[in-house]
Amino acid sequence: MNVELEILVERAGLYDVTEQVTEIVSGSGVDEGLVTVFIQHTSASLVIQENADPSVLADLQAWMDRSVPQDSQLYAHRAEGPDDMPAHIRAAITASHVTIPVIGGRMALGTWQGIFLWEHRLGPKERRVIVSVH
Amino acid sequence: MNVELEILVERAGLYDVTEQVTEIVSGSGVDEGLVTVFIQHTSASLVIQENADPSVLADLQAWMDRSVPQDSQLYAHRAEGPDDMPAHIRAAITASHVTIPVIGGRMALGTWQGIFLWEHRLGPKERRVIVSVH
Amino acid sequence: MNVELEILVERAGLYDVTEQVTEIVSGSGVDEGLVTVFIQHTSASLVIQENADPSVLADLQAWMDRSVPQDSQLYAHRAEGPDDMPAHIRAAITASHVTIPVIGGRMALGTWQGIFLWEHRLGPKERRVIVSVH
Repeated sequence: MNVELEILVERAGLYDVTEQVTEIVSGSGVDEGLVTVFIQHTSASLVIQENADPSVLADLQAWMDRSVPQDSQLYAHRAEGPDDMPAHIRAAITASHVTIPVIGGRMALGTWQGIFLWEHRLGPKERRVIVSVH
Repeated sequence: MNVELEILVERAGLYDVTEQVTEIVSGSGVDEGLVTVFIQHTSASLVIQENADPSVLADLQAWMDRSVPQDSQLYAHRAEGPDDMPAHIRAAITASHVTIPVIGGRMALGTWQGIFLWEHRLGPKERRVIVSVH
Repeated sequence: MNVELEILVERAGLYDVTEQVTEIVSGSGVDEGLVTVFIQHTSASLVIQENADPSVLADLQAWMDRSVPQDSQLYAHRAEGPDDMPAHIRAAITASHVTIPVIGGRMALGTWQGIFLWEHRLGPKERRVIVSVH
């Protein structure tokens, strides 16, 4: 079963989508299998990260800002704006998809794990994500 | 269904393999499922990236060259050549496999998404990739 | 089929879990399919890397120590210890899961590929990993 989600984001940062994915897994009727979450973009990505302390998300973003700088002099690809090329690099070193086991009809996430869409562009965007349960 | 691909690369950089994977998915007869592309090497990797502007690929490579330098003084593992250890690190922070939903017999890639083999060694190589459609 | 593994680690570094996964794949009776290895933590991760020369593992760790420093002044999230936030970042740029094709009842790993749990916390930990064969 495949379900398409539209995720609206306002700015760069990590957005928790665990609840939406949990609902799709519940509704799928799959008792044992895998769920794959796939993002149809190359300037936003997906990660599984800690869902407890919001400062973790801020520190992840700050590390990314230091390691893949918003400095257009570094990049040849500037036609889509100065934040586009760093967004592509940030997506390349994180992930386009995450796969999680489904056991007893539920995702087998660890206690502190959440699924996050990591937006790498600076402004608002509408992002498409496909959730596949098999 | 599993199909093995041999990809010949001439030097470090990103090589678009989307067309080969698309053909395998078409030929598999799978209407709804997932395709997994897996690389059998640890000094080359796979990423989903923008397929429109070639300068994106050059900028990705330039960031990698800055962030994981070709400086053999940094590495203890030098027996296989000075470009081998940086290649392993570059593979570790990108991906050994990508998984993409198959919907209506076709990969559900976004408009600007392509599947790329990212070669991290400097010289020519023959790389083996397995495409699994289920 | 899902099997849960407990992996005991003593300190930060890469731990080869290929043998445990190989045994689970053999015992599953699956002849052709995929195996997914998923880690239920966000301060340890999984990678496929070279299993031949131990200096590769030391160099991977050294690059990580340089690129995601253990410097608590950089991070707001310090409540769980100074090594926790760098561990989250290191997990985010590697992977929460790896998927490998199963062909003829065996994982289709390349000659030099091993599956590693990469522990990012400094002290001993008990880590839970789920191996799913389908």
